[in-house]
Amino acid sequence: MRATLLHGPHDIRVESVPDPRVLRSTDAVVRVTAACVCGSDLWPYASHTGAPARMGHEFVGVVEDTGPDVTTVARGDLVVAPWVFSDGTCEFCREGLTTSCPHGGMWGYGDADGAQAEAVRVPFADGTLFRIPGPADSELVPSLLTLSDVYGTGHHAAVRGGVTQGSSVTVIGDGAVGLLGVLAARQLGAGQIILMGRHRARTDLGREFGASEVVAARGEEGVEAVRALTNGQGTSVVIEAVGTRPAYDQAVGAVRSGGTISRVGVPQYEEAPIGTGSLFFRNVRLTGGAAPTRSYMERLLPAVLDGTVEPGRVFDVTTDLDGIADGYRQMADRKSLKVLVRP
Amino acid sequence: MRATLLHGPHDIRVESVPDPRVLRSTDAVVRVTAACVCGSDLWPYASHTGAPARMGHEFVGVVEDTGPDVTTVARGDLVVAPWVFSDGTCEFCREGLTTSCPHGGMWGYGDADGAQAEAVRVPFADGTLFRIPGPADSELVPSLLTLSDVYGTGHHAAVRGGVTQGSSVTVIGDGAVGLLGVLAARQLGAGQIILMGRHRARTDLGREFGASEVVAARGEEGVEAVRALTNGQGTSVVIEAVGTRPAYDQAVGAVRSGGTISRVGVPQYEEAPIGTGSLFFRNVRLTGGAAPTRSYMERLLPAVLDGTVEPGRVFDVTTDLDGIADGYRQMADRKSLKVLVRP
Repeated sequence: MRATLLHGPHDIRVESVPDPRVLRSTDAVVRVTAACVCGSDLWPYASHTGAPARMGHEFVGVVEDTGPDVTTVARGDLVVAPWVFSDGTCEFCREGLTTSCPHGGMWGYGDADGAQAEAVRVPFADGTLFRIPGPADSELVPSLLTLSDVYGTGHHAAVRGGVTQGSSVTVIGDGAVGLLGVLAARQLGAGQIILMGRHRARTDLGREFGASEVVAARGEEGVEAVRALTNGQGTSVVIEAVGTRPAYDQAVGAVRSGGTISRVGVPQYEEAPIGTGSLFFRNVRLTGGAAPTRSYMERLLPAVLDGTVEPGRVFDVTTDLDGIADGYRQMADRKSLKVLVRP
Repeated sequence: MRATLLHGPHDIRVESVPDPRVLRSTDAVVRVTAACVCGSDLWPYASHTGAPARMGHEFVGVVEDTGPDVTTVARGDLVVAPWVFSDGTCEFCREGLTTSCPHGGMWGYGDADGAQAEAVRVPFADGTLFRIPGPADSELVPSLLTLSDVYGTGHHAAVRGGVTQGSSVTVIGDGAVGLLGVLAARQLGAGQIILMGRHRARTDLGREFGASEVVAARGEEGVEAVRALTNGQGTSVVIEAVGTRPAYDQAVGAVRSGGTISRVGVPQYEEAPIGTGSLFFRNVRLTGGAAPTRSYMERLLPAVLDGTVEPGRVFDVTTDLDGIADGYRQMADRKSLKVLVRP
C-alpha cells in the first residue's frame, strides 16, 4: 500500500510500504476513508532528522480485518480512531485518561502505522476504535474525523478549563484546535468567548462557531485588548491552543484572578513562569494536556450526527495522497487551515 | 504600644510605636490576645533590607474600638483576622477570593500595622474580622489563631487539590502548613496520606493529624519512596507546602498522571518546568496559591470549637513580646515548629 513518510525538513514523500495485517489477536486492520494533516505535524515537518517517519494520527475508516479477540468492531464497520491508541482496559483507560495508558502509543512511532496512508493496523482495536453508525461515504466524514483529535482536543481544553454556563473564555490561537475550543466552549454554555487570532478567514469561522469577540493583537497589546473587554479583569478561563512561550505568556496576562489556563497546544518550551508574579498570588490554575479524545467520542458524537455542530468546517483543503506534500506546504505557509486527505 | 519590627537580617526588635486608632469609618482597633510567627516571616527575617518592617500577620484579639460604619463586630468581641485584610464587598470577596480584593492588603505593609504587637488597626473590619463565640481567655485560642493562616492555608491546599473521599495525597513539608494540610486532607476524607518530612517530632504530629505514611527521604529518592507506596504511580493530589524549587520538582515526581499539584508554599522561584516532560503529557494540573483564609473561617470553626480537631497543636513554643526575637531564632533554626506570641 501507499503511505506518507517524512524524510527530513519539508521532505514529504508517498511511498510503497508493506500492507498492514493483523499481527496480534487484538489488532484490526482499517482501510482509511479520510485522514488529515495536524498542526502538530508541522513541528516535525520543519525539523525532522533521522530515519523516515510514518505520518498522520487522525483517521476515519472501514474495518477490513480483525484479530480473534476483537469483539466491539467487525469487518465493514465505519470507525474513527483517536490520535493515540490505548488498551481500553487499564486503570487509566477506565478513568478516561487514555493518553496515559501504559500499553498505548502514538501512530507512526515504533512499529505503529501512520494514518496518512491507505490502511492502518490498529493495536487494541476494542480500546482504540469507536464505531460510528452510517455509511462509509457519509458527508459527515469530515466532522467525524475531527473526533480523532482537534474537536476532542478543543473539548478537552474547555472541560479541563472548567467551562460552564456563563463562563467567560479567551481562546488563544485560530488554528483548528483553537476554533474547536470556541465551539466546545459554546456547547458547554460559555457566555463571552474572546478569540485571539490574526487570520480573518479563520476568526470569521470562529465567530460562526460561537466567538463573541475577536482580538487580532498579540502579546501585551493583545492582553490589554482582552482586559478592555472584561472590565479590566481578564476571563475566568483561557484556552491556550498554540503551544509557544509567547502564547503562554498571553494566557497568563488574559486570565482573571482565580481563573484557569487550560493548555492544549503542545508546549514548545519546558520552563515558564509559575511563581508569585504569574500564577501563585492570583490563584490561577494551570491545566489541560494531551487530550484523551477516545473518551470524549461517545459524548460528542450525537451533535455531530444530528448536525447541531459542524466541526468538519475546519477542513478547507481536500487532497489525495498524491497531493499531500502540497497540503503540508499549504498548512506550513498558513494558506490552509487544515487539510483533509482522502487516500 | 509595643510592636515587633525587623530592622535587617536576623535583627528583630520590639519598640514603642504610636497606639493604633480608628482612622476610617470602617476601621476597628483590636487588642491582640495571641499572634504568632509564620514560616513565611523567615524569608524576610533572613534577608530584609530597607526601612524597618512591622511584623506579624496572624492574630486573635478583642475589639477595643470601631468606626461608625462597622456593623458586624463590636467592642468586647473576640475576633480572628486573616493574614490579609479585604473589603468583604467586592466581586472577588463575594466569590471567596479575598486575597484578590482590590482594596485589600497585607499586615505590615504601607500604613498597615503588624500583628506581633499589642494592638492592631484593622481596615475594613466588617470584611476582615471574624467574630468568635466564647471568652477571650479560651483555651481554644491557639487553634482559633490557626484560622488566620496556617490551618486555612492547609485547607485551601486540600480544597484546590480536589481532595475528596478516598483521595490519595502526598504532603510535601512538615512545617505548620504541611501538617495542617494533612489534617485538612483527612477532614475531607482522603484515604492514603503520605507526609514527606525529616523532623521526627513534626512527622509524629503529622501522623496524629492523619498521615498514613511518612517519607523522610527527599528529591529523587523521596519520589521513588512515594511511588513505591503507590503502585508506582504517585498520588492523585500533591500538596506542596514548602515553596522551594526542589519541593516543586518533588511534587512533579510524586503526582499521579491526571492528578493535581496544589501549591501553598510561597514559591521562591518564578520559572519551573511545566512542559511536555513534566505536566503536559501526563495531564497534571497545577493549582493552589495564596489562601483566602477569611472565606474558610465559617466552615472550619465548628470542628475547632467542638474539639474535633486541634490545629493549635502546631504551636510548640509560647512567648511574650520580650521573647519574640528568640522565637524567630528558634524557628529559623528549626528548633521550634511555630511560635505563639502573647503580647
